[in-house]
Amino acid sequence: MVEEMPLLSQQTPAEVRQMIRNGKWTKQTSGLANGYTQANLVILPQKYAYDFLLFCQRNPRPCPLLEVLDAGSPFLRELAPGADIRMDVPKYRIYKAGQLIEETANITDLWRDDFVTFLIGCSFSFEESLLENGLPVRHIEQETNVPMYRTSIQCHAAGVFSGPLVVSMRPMTPSQAIRAVQLTSRFPSVHGAPIHIGDPTAIGIKNLSHPDFGESAAVHEDEIPVFWACGVTPQAAVMASKPEIAITHAPGCMLVTDQKNSTFSV
Amino acid sequence: MVEEMPLLSQQTPAEVRQMIRNGKWTKQTSGLANGYTQANLVILPQKYAYDFLLFCQRNPRPCPLLEVLDAGSPFLRELAPGADIRMDVPKYRIYKAGQLIEETANITDLWRDDFVTFLIGCSFSFEESLLENGLPVRHIEQETNVPMYRTSIQCHAAGVFSGPLVVSMRPMTPSQAIRAVQLTSRFPSVHGAPIHIGDPTAIGIKNLSHPDFGESAAVHEDEIPVFWACGVTPQAAVMASKPEIAITHAPGCMLVTDQKNSTFSV
Repeated sequence: MVEEMPLLSQQTPAEVRQMIRNGKWTKQTSGLANGYTQANLVILPQKYAYDFLLFCQRNPRPCPLLEVLDAGSPFLRELAPGADIRMDVPKYRIYKAGQLIEETANITDLWRDDFVTFLIGCSFSFEESLLENGLPVRHIEQETNVPMYRTSIQCHAAGVFSGPLVVSMRPMTPSQAIRAVQLTSRFPSVHGAPIHIGDPTAIGIKNLSHPDFGESAAVHEDEIPVFWACGVTPQAAVMASKPEIAITHAPGCMLVTDQKNSTFSV
Repeated sequence: MVEEMPLLSQQTPAEVRQMIRNGKWTKQTSGLANGYTQANLVILPQKYAYDFLLFCQRNPRPCPLLEVLDAGSPFLRELAPGADIRMDVPKYRIYKAGQLIEETANITDLWRDDFVTFLIGCSFSFEESLLENGLPVRHIEQETNVPMYRTSIQCHAAGVFSGPLVVSMRPMTPSQAIRAVQLTSRFPSVHGAPIHIGDPTAIGIKNLSHPDFGESAAVHEDEIPVFWACGVTPQAAVMASKPEIAITHAPGCMLVTDQKNSTFSV
């Protein structure tokens, strides 16, 4: 007898998190619990928390904060009541002094009373809206990771944190790009409207086919590149400041929340 | 010979701030430098800054942060480069342990190296949009202060800060209210869309003609009350926590910034 497995995309966020907590899912979360917001993760000791919170306030496009937990608390209250940030993300990355030390599926043993957890909006949320409206999302078509680039635009520094704005890129025709501006403007808390359209060199990107993170995406002849502020920005700023310890999600392995993407639209 | 005085509404923000800095304007800023954003002010010692920043992050509708200055710095960088927060607001209120101690036109003598300045969005910005679109703003028609009410809705607490959501009210016909939702939704960083329409008791307001702050506004027979989150919310939360010292603007006496209201629209 074959046990029936519900389609992963149709599981509830709570079911997905349970599966992850039980160690039954240690991969990327893209496509799980469709329609629900996924969040980027940064955990820092409290002594860095004010500077990081201020960095996010000063740079809301790349760092749209969705929830900040009380110091020492691993439990979410707003995005996913009942979720435990120590075990409900499929894969974590542990950094010490800016160096990646290890990847792990559970950080319970590492948890400290002074840890502050930051959950940050992610472009998965607005990509759903793009797809629903028939706009191309090339890296999904290609089944690759979204191309991301360091730009010549500097973030507003805050205390120990500073660094360049990192952007993600999706190629579109001009008319599709116009529609994409309209659609993503409705999602200010998950990066919002694009920050640039067209000439990559205008924002310091020398070679579109060599992204700094992720994989390259084919730009067709009638298309222009469209650039959005990217959640890698705060992670890069954190690493550059070399805090004694920092914990993030592994790329693509996000927290699945109980909030519908549509909750974040204006 | 009568010296020609430029119409106050048509002065530039820099001219208005200079006039204020020179002690030539110590009254409300409503109507000055039309079209430019005015900001609410909260200054706190650094030891309260993280909790207050977190309170604002958790309650973005009543506490839309526009700029946070570095500890000890009185100089704005984004909203009004060159402005000095110690002398460019017409009237300040000094609170000690939650009690109003004095009002003054200059806080230079009180300034401390550990003061952190928070500038918060204000409903003046979206009222311009309402007026331009032919919607009534009753307290402006009446030449009174906007009516404000404590509600039964609790803000999300953060550290030492907590308290009820305070709302402002503008009466409108239902069709005007619908248009007002559309218009103010475009201004998420200055309170955004209304938080309630209609029955005041649903949000714990017992008597519409007795506001907790400001003055009452006439509601015509074909009108319903429309409620927006109000910038008095963070001030009330600060006072309730009785910090050793806190400085705010006096009601209506705001910082006039160099940013056009339209900058804050989505």
